[in-house]
Amino acid sequence: MAPRRTAHRSIGRPHRAAGENARESLLDAAVALFAEQGIARTTVAEIAARAGVTSAMVHYYFSDRDRLLDVIAKERLLRAAIAIWSPVTESDEVEPMLCGLVQRLLQAVEDFPWLPSLWLREVVSDGGQLRPRLLKMMPFEYARHLISTVRAAQRRGELSSGIEPRLVLMSVLGLTLLPLASIGVLQEIPLSQGIKREHIGRHAEALLMNAFAKRSRRRTRAV
Amino acid sequence: MAPRRTAHRSIGRPHRAAGENARESLLDAAVALFAEQGIARTTVAEIAARAGVTSAMVHYYFSDRDRLLDVIAKERLLRAAIAIWSPVTESDEVEPMLCGLVQRLLQAVEDFPWLPSLWLREVVSDGGQLRPRLLKMMPFEYARHLISTVRAAQRRGELSSGIEPRLVLMSVLGLTLLPLASIGVLQEIPLSQGIKREHIGRHAEALLMNAFAKRSRRRTRAV
Repeated sequence: MAPRRTAHRSIGRPHRAAGENARESLLDAAVALFAEQGIARTTVAEIAARAGVTSAMVHYYFSDRDRLLDVIAKERLLRAAIAIWSPVTESDEVEPMLCGLVQRLLQAVEDFPWLPSLWLREVVSDGGQLRPRLLKMMPFEYARHLISTVRAAQRRGELSSGIEPRLVLMSVLGLTLLPLASIGVLQEIPLSQGIKREHIGRHAEALLMNAFAKRSRRRTRAV
Repeated sequence: MAPRRTAHRSIGRPHRAAGENARESLLDAAVALFAEQGIARTTVAEIAARAGVTSAMVHYYFSDRDRLLDVIAKERLLRAAIAIWSPVTESDEVEPMLCGLVQRLLQAVEDFPWLPSLWLREVVSDGGQLRPRLLKMMPFEYARHLISTVRAAQRRGELSSGIEPRLVLMSVLGLTLLPLASIGVLQEIPLSQGIKREHIGRHAEALLMNAFAKRSRRRTRAV
């Protein structure tokens, strides 16, 4: 093993390139642990150990636990959420919009395996510690565009009026992130063993495409 | 206040009628607290205080924490789950089956307001402490019937083959219990303020009825 090069740096201050890596490693270790066991049950020492650094490093980069959570909300959760949601505004049709959303959600979970569980534990659950942080920063223009696109389709008679536009976003999450976060439970039930990410993606897309398929004018009149 | 009648009972043993009430009150207090803040963050003393009895009473009825969790899984969660799921076997058609499920889920949440949050925290989330207890007792014949009914509809060409029968149960939960557990978050987002239980029920039913509507043979052939 090469000796550590600490001679020309002040004590406790990491080397710059190593520093960038250590900071990112700490964030990665933190999101992984938070997803596995929840924020409340995770200690700074565990995060440091998983990242292969000392606890002092956590304090050096993030000063305290609150600041670490702020950074995770911004540099991990918000970044993932914007990658998933922002292309929504490129479409004015419900079906391709929902189809794109499902595909990007699945891609995001491929890239960030911690996402479904962290969302379930710390955003959706009451008392979730990342929820207020994410809501404060999240731009809601994407959700607004989705809602108004669904409303417009209903006005044109293409979509049943029983659909509640304000609940469509949550429905997409319930058909993707929820089962993705529950893959563990599904494997414990003999009937659903073998369910994988790609099954969840295909099923969510099929279900939503059926549910939001344009109704023909004839059928609309008849119903 | 009437003096306590303890004279003819052995010390620590509650009066029988009062005892039945105390036991039920303790279970009600426990599920409410577990739903609000999670099992890990709830102490025996808090449960006793909420039920208006002493901590010793909790030990008297449930001996230890594990036993209390066993009883809650059996007498609260399993009971609710069976009320929701068992009528599924009365139907061999997908649409009325799903419609009935949504209605019973909504009714159960009306009767047991702790249900969505407890399910989210302690059954679906990895490490949920009620999950192994519920899975051990839950009869899976209802899920099996639902899966085989969906498969039969697909074989008859009435339902798109993109639907994954093993994921339909989770989809129903994702469209009902998930938003019901998230009513708190929805109120914090200006765009979805004012969403109530009845909106969630109506939306879930409309979405599922659209998604699982029988396709006509003509349309099936054309697709």
